[in-house]
This record gives sequence, C-alpha cells and structure tokens, in this order.
Amino acid sequence: MAKYTIGLDYGTLSGRALIVNVETGEELASSVYEYPHAVMDEKLPCGKKLGQDWALQHPQDYIDVLSITIPDVIKKSGVDAADIIGVGIDFTACTVLPTTKSGTPLCFLDEYKSEPHAYVKLWKHHAAQAHATRINDIAIEMGEDWLENYGGKISSEWAIPKLWQILDEAPEIYEKAERFIEATDWVVWQLTGVETRNSCCAGYKAMWNKTTGYPSNEFFKALDPRMENVIDEKFGREVLASGKCAGYITEDASKLTGLKVGTAVAAGIIDAHIFVPAVGVSKPGEMVAIIGTSTCHMMMSDVEKKVKGICGVVADGIMPGLYGYEAGQSCVGDHFGWFIDNCLPASYYEEAKEKGINIHKLLRSKCEAQKPGASGLVALDWWNGNRSILVDVDLTGMIVGMTLRTKPEEIYRALIEATAYGTRMIIENYREQGVEVNSFYAAGGISQKDPMTMQIYADIIKMPIKIAGSDQGGALGSAIFGAVAAGSEKGGYDDAFYAASIMGKVKDVVYEPIKENSDIYDKLYAEYKILHDYFGQGGNDVMKRLKAIKGENE
Amino acid sequence: MAKYTIGLDYGTLSGRALIVNVETGEELASSVYEYPHAVMDEKLPCGKKLGQDWALQHPQDYIDVLSITIPDVIKKSGVDAADIIGVGIDFTACTVLPTTKSGTPLCFLDEYKSEPHAYVKLWKHHAAQAHATRINDIAIEMGEDWLENYGGKISSEWAIPKLWQILDEAPEIYEKAERFIEATDWVVWQLTGVETRNSCCAGYKAMWNKTTGYPSNEFFKALDPRMENVIDEKFGREVLASGKCAGYITEDASKLTGLKVGTAVAAGIIDAHIFVPAVGVSKPGEMVAIIGTSTCHMMMSDVEKKVKGICGVVADGIMPGLYGYEAGQSCVGDHFGWFIDNCLPASYYEEAKEKGINIHKLLRSKCEAQKPGASGLVALDWWNGNRSILVDVDLTGMIVGMTLRTKPEEIYRALIEATAYGTRMIIENYREQGVEVNSFYAAGGISQKDPMTMQIYADIIKMPIKIAGSDQGGALGSAIFGAVAAGSEKGGYDDAFYAASIMGKVKDVVYEPIKENSDIYDKLYAEYKILHDYFGQGGNDVMKRLKAIKGENE
Repeated sequence: MAKYTIGLDYGTLSGRALIVNVETGEELASSVYEYPHAVMDEKLPCGKKLGQDWALQHPQDYIDVLSITIPDVIKKSGVDAADIIGVGIDFTACTVLPTTKSGTPLCFLDEYKSEPHAYVKLWKHHAAQAHATRINDIAIEMGEDWLENYGGKISSEWAIPKLWQILDEAPEIYEKAERFIEATDWVVWQLTGVETRNSCCAGYKAMWNKTTGYPSNEFFKALDPRMENVIDEKFGREVLASGKCAGYITEDASKLTGLKVGTAVAAGIIDAHIFVPAVGVSKPGEMVAIIGTSTCHMMMSDVEKKVKGICGVVADGIMPGLYGYEAGQSCVGDHFGWFIDNCLPASYYEEAKEKGINIHKLLRSKCEAQKPGASGLVALDWWNGNRSILVDVDLTGMIVGMTLRTKPEEIYRALIEATAYGTRMIIENYREQGVEVNSFYAAGGISQKDPMTMQIYADIIKMPIKIAGSDQGGALGSAIFGAVAAGSEKGGYDDAFYAASIMGKVKDVVYEPIKENSDIYDKLYAEYKILHDYFGQGGNDVMKRLKAIKGENE
Repeated sequence: MAKYTIGLDYGTLSGRALIVNVETGEELASSVYEYPHAVMDEKLPCGKKLGQDWALQHPQDYIDVLSITIPDVIKKSGVDAADIIGVGIDFTACTVLPTTKSGTPLCFLDEYKSEPHAYVKLWKHHAAQAHATRINDIAIEMGEDWLENYGGKISSEWAIPKLWQILDEAPEIYEKAERFIEATDWVVWQLTGVETRNSCCAGYKAMWNKTTGYPSNEFFKALDPRMENVIDEKFGREVLASGKCAGYITEDASKLTGLKVGTAVAAGIIDAHIFVPAVGVSKPGEMVAIIGTSTCHMMMSDVEKKVKGICGVVADGIMPGLYGYEAGQSCVGDHFGWFIDNCLPASYYEEAKEKGINIHKLLRSKCEAQKPGASGLVALDWWNGNRSILVDVDLTGMIVGMTLRTKPEEIYRALIEATAYGTRMIIENYREQGVEVNSFYAAGGISQKDPMTMQIYADIIKMPIKIAGSDQGGALGSAIFGAVAAGSEKGGYDDAFYAASIMGKVKDVVYEPIKENSDIYDKLYAEYKILHDYFGQGGNDVMKRLKAIKGENE
C-alpha cells in the first residue's frame, strides 16, 4: 500500500498543505488558507494602534490552517488517513510568540488581548532595531566568538532583539511569557503536545551553536540583568535537528486535522531552508537560491568555516549532519518592482496597449532583444543595502554608463544583471574561504516565471541552473521531512538525504551558461567587483555620507 | 530723432530679426523665418541620400531670412529705414560653406546641386570625427602650441576637419572652393559686398590666434600636402574683431532688405557669444551661461591663460580688447529631456491628468517640494560626455544613492543638481588657473522658464544669478554690435562695452543663493568632485571600458 506524507508551508500571508506520495514524490493535492488577520502592521483586532515598523500575526490563523487545509487535502486526494505516515512543517522565521508554560499564546488570554507584545512578532517586525544594534555592540565589546558565525552581525529580526523589546516596553508580558517560541515549533507543539526547538531556527535566529550552545548567561546579563537566565527561563537548552521526529499526533490534534493519532511529526524548519531537500539536494556544495523579492542562498558543507558576510553557519541547520550556510541579497524582485513602479515611461504602457500585451511582457521582450554588454551599463544592486557579503544596510544603489541613447529596458536589464553579479560575489566569497560551491538550484517566483533572468544568472555565475520542480513552495520539502520523521519502519525513510534524492524534484529545463555570453559577463563582472569594493569596502564612503546628509535634511 | 539698429540671429532652424532703439534698448518688433530646408540630415533636395552624422543647410534660406524678416520688422515697427543706422549678425558656428571667389555658394551652381559637399555644413555635422582625431594626433606629435588654447583638443565640428573631409571625399569640390567661409561672414559679405572673417569664429572654430595667426603651413602640409596653403588659398589671413564695422549695405542688399545703402554692418559673431553684450556685460570676470540643450559658458578676462578643459581662449573672441573664454557642458536640457522621455512613470501622467496640469508642471511641483540633500542622490552629468573640464566624449552618466524609496522626482532633481555641480566645477577651474569669475548671468530657454533650476544653480555656485532680459535670443546683442559698427557719429556708439551697458538687459529677478541650501550643497559638491575625479581622471576608467565592451557587442 502506498504511503503519503503532508507538508505544511506557513508563509507570510497564508498557509498551505500538500499531500505527497512517499515513494514517487507525486503531489496529489494541495490546499491554501489565507490568514484572516494577515499581517497586522497598523492595529490589533481590538483597534489598538501599532508603532512604526511593527508587524504582528495572530496564532489562531495558524491553528485554522491545520483544521482547514489538512482535512481538505485528505479529502481531495482520496487518501486514507491511515496511509499518511508523517507531517513536516516549515515556517517564516524568526516568527516568534510568548506563551504560557503549557503553550497557550499570551494573546489568547483575555487580559492581554489589547497588548501588542502578547501577539506573534512576524519575521518582518523591525521595531527592535535599537536592541539588535545594542546586542551587536555588546557582543563586539565582550569579544563573543559566536558573532563570527553570522558574518559579524545579527539582525533586528532575530528572537533575542524581539524578546528584549518586550522586556523594555512591556515587562509584565516578559514576566508572564514562560516560553518564547518560534511559530514553527509552536505548531509542532500543538500537533504533538511536546515542546521542541528545531536546530534551524535556533541556529539561524537565536544564536545557538551545536557545539557551544547559546551565548553565556553573562552575555545576556550584560544586555539586561533581568535577562541573565533567559535561555533557561524562556527557551530551554535542548535542540532537535530539523527533520528529526519531534513527536506524534495527539488525540486533540487528530480531532483537529483528521490525521491518525500517532502520525509522526517532524521538527520544523525555516521556509527558505526547506527548499534544499525539496529540490533533491543530497550532498555538500549544492547551492539553492530562493529568488523572490529578496534572495536567500542555502548550502550545505562538511566543513565549518567562518565565512565573511554570510547570514549564518549552523550545524544541522538545514539537514542533519552537515553545516548549513545561509547568505542573502536584500533586494532582488523588489529591485525590479521599484524600476517598474518608478522608471517605466508612459510610452511603454501605450506601446503595450497597442500591441495588446501586458507591460511586463513588453519589457521582457525588449530586454530579451539585448545582447550582453550592449547597454554599456553596470549597476550595484544595493537599493536595499547589501546583506552578503558586505552586511551593510547603509549602502545604496549605483548605476554607471548612461548616455542619451540609454533605454529603460537597458537599465532594467542592468538591474537584473547586477543581482546576478551579487550572487556570483557570494559564490566566489565561499570559494575563497574554502567552502565549495559545485552546483546551483533556483527556487522562488522569479525562477519559475522568468527564463530570461535565469539565463542571465547562468551566464554570469557560469554554472548550469536547475529549477525547483514543485510549484508548491517549500511544502514538498516539508513532506520529505515528514517521511523522514516517520522512518522506514512506517514506510518512510531513515535518511533525509536519501529521502530528498527520491522525493525532491527539479524541472526538466536546465539553464546552461552560454560561453560567448559568459565571456562578456566576465568583463562586466570585473567592473562590478571594482565598483563593489570601491563603494562597499571603504574606497569611497559616499553612500554613507549621502545617507547621513539625507537623514539631516529630510 | 531716435536711431535704431537691427540684430539678426541665425539659429539652427530659423533666422530672426529684431529692431532696437539704440538709446533705450527698447525692442520694437521682431520677425522669425523658418528655414524651408531646415536641417538636411537624410537627403539633399534632389533626393540624394546623406551619410551618417551628416547635417547640411541650404544658403538660400539665409538669404530669405534677410529679404523677409528685415522688411517685416521695418514695417511692424513703423521705423523709417533712414533711421536704421546699423545691422549686426550672429550665427550658429562652425557652420561653413564652400564658395567661388565672388562668394557664390558651390551648391548654387547647377553642376554641384547633387553634390553633398557643395552645401553648408551645419555646426552639428559630425561626419568629420576621423579628421578631427587625426588633427589632434598630429598637433600633439608636432608639439603645436595653439592646441593648449583649446583645452588640448579640437572638435569635429570645426572648420578644418570639415574642409579636410571635403578634400578626402570630394577633391573636385575642394579644388573648386576658392573660399571656405563661416555662414555669418558669408551673410555679411552678401550685405556689404566685402569678404571679411570675424575674430570670434576664426578664433573659436579655425585655430586662429591674434598674436600668432593660424597654424603654420607646415602643420597643414602634415595633414595633407594638398592643404599646405589652405589658409591663403581658402580663408585669407585678415581677421576683423567681432562687432567692428565690416562694411555697408550695398545697392543690391538695399533692394533685398529695404535698408538704406550705406547702413553699417558689423562683423559677425557666434550665436552663443553674442549673449555677453546682450545681458549688458561690460567688464572682465562676468560669466554668461547660455543654458539650453547644452550649456555654453562665455567670459571675458584681461589675462590670457591656458585653462584646462575649456573650449577656447581667443583675443577679441567676444568683444574687442579682451580675451574671450568659452567653456561648455555637453548635456543639460538634453539630460532633463532624456529623463522625461525614458524614466517618467505612467502613474505620473495619470496624476497630472487627474490634477488637470501638464506633466512638466507636476514634475516641477514634486521637485520643488524637495529639500536639498534630502534625496541622498548625487549624479555625474555625463550622459553626453564631458566637455569642460575633462574634454572627454567617452565619459558616461552615473548616479549613486538610490533606495527602494527613491522617487522619480528625486532622480530628476539630482540630474539638475549634477549640471549645476558641473558649472561650479568650470567656475572653480577658472579660479584655480588664475582667471577671475565674479558674477554670473544666465540666458537660454532654461534660464527663462525654470526658476527652480536657476535657484538650484545659485545655491550651488554660490553667486547671485542674473537672467537675460530679452527673450529674442542673441538678436539684441547683434543689434548692439550694429550700433557699434555705425559709431557715434551716426547716432550709435564707439565703444562696445559702453553700448552693452546701455542697450543690454537683465530681468528684475535675481536668484540669490540661500545660505542654508548652499551649506548642504557644499557637502554634496564635495562628493560630486570626488566622483568626478575618480571616474573622470583615471581613478577608474570603467566608463571607457564599458563603452568599449558596448562597441564590441552592439
């Protein structure tokens, strides 16, 4: 009898379930539920206003995803729940909430319904920047080793800045929060009745290291004396490798979802990292880039190196037994969107209308007609700062080479090329630091919809690009983890890498680098690199000075 | 009895006459005639096709300007022709034609009607670039001193490259061309029956120097042995200071124009340079910028210095007795036009429509709302290369500081500011070389129509900006030269400076620098200067390399 697993993929605005055949990887049915509360960035349900840079979610929406999408895919697929052997979960991160000791979110309690700090802080809640800055400063002062694992800087999106903000602004909530937990771990808890912490979130978002554990109590005390024992009080020190079995469906969870009691549930993982098994990566040195509004670059290695400017290196961070490396580009699809919103002339809309095609198609056709190097343009893709490898939010965009004959589509293509140069810079940075990058997979919206951009990437990074084969986001990867959590005895797999090689998928199309294009792009990349170092590494700090002047005069 | 003069202003597409009261400067009437042949850049009247970068005109159009606009202004003004004491003429340059010894244009001869080289080569005929490059190379090889008077490089627009092109491509025309003459001098010849050469065109466009004359025969021989005696054969060595009396209206010219026989005619001048008397400049150190698609910066000095990157320093080049300096920016209004054509989003057109205003007004209102420094942007204004002070056509545009929140109007304003930084660079370059710049006048379309841009210029160059008072182009200046050619005995003036101080005009409005803006712009200009030197002076020749790559791949 065929066995099945369900992958749950929690995004920023909706949650998705996907039911997959364990032996063939066939995707039988999926179901999406949009969170009724979406992202709360202006006010709470009660009408209470939120501050600038806040972004909250409501945990009831996560429960509703379970009770709606799981029964839906079981029904649509016609699969017997008895043949569903495991569930895996990926989630945005760091998306984190305060709960009681038993896992009840504080915002479920009547007395805290109007307290913003009682809700889930979504990954893009950016109101803890001051706390993150202070953490970085103190870590540098105290010579904290772990900082180097994160390219020398942690982000305001992470768990400790978010928790410290609660302590500062709502000490009663801090006190009442017996646990402070990633949403993915919280969902696992709801399904299994067991509190676990997954290595991916702990490592990439909470400064945990497999060898050295969390930063010392002394360090947390230096932040605020009341935080000295924060790990023991609110987190616990046990961490489970992502994908390992976290527990089994309880009776309550069975009633909620229609899954059988005892179905295995995998420890959670971040929604970007789960693409690694989803595309079938089963060995070190295979980079997976999720290319959307921004880009995450995931890779595994059997060596642990402190690589400059990456987002993090975490043992078991992606799949068990290997070091997971994450790097990032802050501005990719957002970059192209900025151009379309702000720079595309009215005449192009008229032309699109005349031709009866949409503006994106017109722009793409004009771009496709260009030859590499023919625009004479090079841009630095820093419209939203630079994540890897410079880790500098104060860098800004630059473009050079315009003449009076420069066309909008040439600028647009130069922006696409710039993001590809940025990716090549990340790859070469790994190689220079002794971490191999041997192949390249692309996932995310742009990889699925934009063949021209993928060809440009292949030509610039000079590696074939394979494309994620499922259009169900990371849900396929989570289903793979569900099969591993179940284990071979139940009809799943014992080894995550083997499971990924069987169930993971890429499309048939592969973008092969075209040598004559690559030869031209080598020259342009050399120019990008000179400008990258000049503007980004202290040759000319004009971007920072202009930002400072801007700050004084806005 | 009041006396009057007529100024004739020959532009690229039309000629204009203006009749002016000599004592008051009052402008009584004007008349414009559009050239029926306009600019011939695709084919001759006979249908013969022209090559790339060609731009010709028909000299009959110039005659028609005389026969139509002069009678028209006499009639409109009601002035008795007997009270019109002088005529002055300004013209685009180098706009140059081959004629017979008696001044008949070769294109008037039946046998050459189908020969492109027999027509007027307009200033923007750019098909002699190869010849200009060769001239520069040979001049450097031979250590020719005069090259330094032109910032180290002459342009393909000048007379000798254009003539050499004729020799190379149509030797019969070269042979038949007994004279090769600027259109302004040719019109003076038609009116007076006397061939003269004005110092402005000779100095700025034909390498003539008041002290040393033309380059040596040896130099011309080095270009081509057949050109050894080109100056004596086709130009003659006599040069008359612009504005001096070149002769008097002949009987034929009287019949053509309605002017009285014996009316004084001034030696011609270039249409940009004539703005100096037109705004009333009467002493050294007063810069006049004609700000249009590109900008010309005119200034007089009592010292002769070899200033880096200027277009030329010419004794009597603007007004008699002083050294005339010209510098230039290749891309000003063209720059703003490029932005509007290529970068202004459709949503702005919709907003303009909703508000019932035109797109320029909307853009200006958005720009005006910005504070200096608030965009965080700095651009290099090199979309069409850099004329002064780098004299480098291979430089291209650059802009730095964009973020995802950057708005089109911020980029637009940054381009305006960039052209003002370019102007400040020219001013500071003069000062560093010991040539005083004490005050600043603006003429040309942008000075008349764009108060915001003028305020930005005042804030950036930190000098008050006075605006040309006549909207009749340079015609007022030519009328002033007409009065000087007539002399005081006839009711005019003997001194050009005095005449300019009486008849020249500025508007009442003066743009005063606003100190708090200037303080911010000082900081931004410092950034511009660093980038200017880095990209323009060999710090990083990326612009040239990108152009080369572009050339290989277009």
